Amino acid sequence: MQERAKATRRSLLEAAAQLFAEQGYAATSVNDISARSGRTSGAVYFHYTSKEGIAVAVVEDRFATWPQLAARYGDETVTPLERLVALSYDIAHALTQDPMARAGARLWTERTVIKAPVPDPFALWTAATTRLLAEARAAGHVYEGVRPARAARALVPAFFGLCILTEALEGATALDDRLTDWWHLTLPSLRPQPSPGNPALHCPTGPWRGFPPSAFSTGRR
Amino acid sequence: MQERAKATRRSLLEAAAQLFAEQGYAATSVNDISARSGRTSGAVYFHYTSKEGIAVAVVEDRFATWPQLAARYGDETVTPLERLVALSYDIAHALTQDPMARAGARLWTERTVIKAPVPDPFALWTAATTRLLAEARAAGHVYEGVRPARAARALVPAFFGLCILTEALEGATALDDRLTDWWHLTLPSLRPQPSPGNPALHCPTGPWRGFPPSAFSTGRR
Repeated sequence: MQERAKATRRSLLEAAAQLFAEQGYAATSVNDISARSGRTSGAVYFHYTSKEGIAVAVVEDRFATWPQLAARYGDETVTPLERLVALSYDIAHALTQDPMARAGARLWTERTVIKAPVPDPFALWTAATTRLLAEARAAGHVYEGVRPARAARALVPAFFGLCILTEALEGATALDDRLTDWWHLTLPSLRPQPSPGNPALHCPTGPWRGFPPSAFSTGRR
Repeated sequence: MQERAKATRRSLLEAAAQLFAEQGYAATSVNDISARSGRTSGAVYFHYTSKEGIAVAVVEDRFATWPQLAARYGDETVTPLERLVALSYDIAHALTQDPMARAGARLWTERTVIKAPVPDPFALWTAATTRLLAEARAAGHVYEGVRPARAARALVPAFFGLCILTEALEGATALDDRLTDWWHLTLPSLRPQPSPGNPALHCPTGPWRGFPPSAFSTGRR
């Protein structure tokens, strides 16, 4: 694609994402996207065919794919369980601060009014969570009774619901605290259980101990 | 209200709930509600003023208020933590099986396209969860470091997200198993921690032990 066409597509995509994130799919028209981007309505139709087309392109650009998280996911200098926690904070931050991710999430929740299939990231997240839990269990960081695939299928919907509902109920600024609270209510259940030979090592004296790792601390406890 | 008017209102409400649950708010017209109920469109406008009006009435009838749960919530023959778990299964069952509850939840998630404020149950759920956790902590069934109000503000959104997303991703039949998995990943973190004097009493040998209570067991573990 020519550089100029690429720049046009990007500016249309970003204007559409801002509008979808602010006011939703139904309330946003192709004319609105044209006015916000400073391009013509014809440019929207030329590059994306329809309002549905540009909505799906917004979802695919970030929300359904999370291209920027691949490095974090594969960072072998950090333990698998810490990578899982770090990924959750990355996603929570994007869902509250990045217009492209916010728009994608909002369009997915509004998918019933969009006349096109809206892709989602949940199969990807569930597979990544399953693999990180399996690696963590193999490394002895997660209790051997945890079944990674089953746990992932419960954790991913709970996490996404936490993000979306917390923003709706308390506003985006509350999400960091709420996510930390949720991990405090989840991580102790994942951890290895005490063994008779070494109760001090495996049996924490309180569920809050050692969490969050300093990198994610909100400094509130 | 006269009995006949009450019966008309109820049949309109139930027809509207079925349609909203099946096809969503935007795709359902007042004519559809009239046809499904066997009443006139005029009856819809007479009793509920508008499509927004009947949608809000559907949400208030069950989803925003959960009138049938008051007995379970106040049942002092059951421990507070068991009541909390039982309430979650009651709500999950209603969200998958009761057309009025399903319609309410769907209308709430579609609230951005409804030109009227759509009430929600989350403040009610959060207050009830806070109180049950506080009672459980006072009874020694929950770790003393758990802060009931903070925990409730994380658990309620995670629970609702689990219900809504599991149905969207895996279908309603998966929800019971997923909810059980989620409690397995949450209850051990709520439980009292081991004490040096009585490690056997407080330090379970596995996070699955003793859960779910037989009344809620899916018979799968």
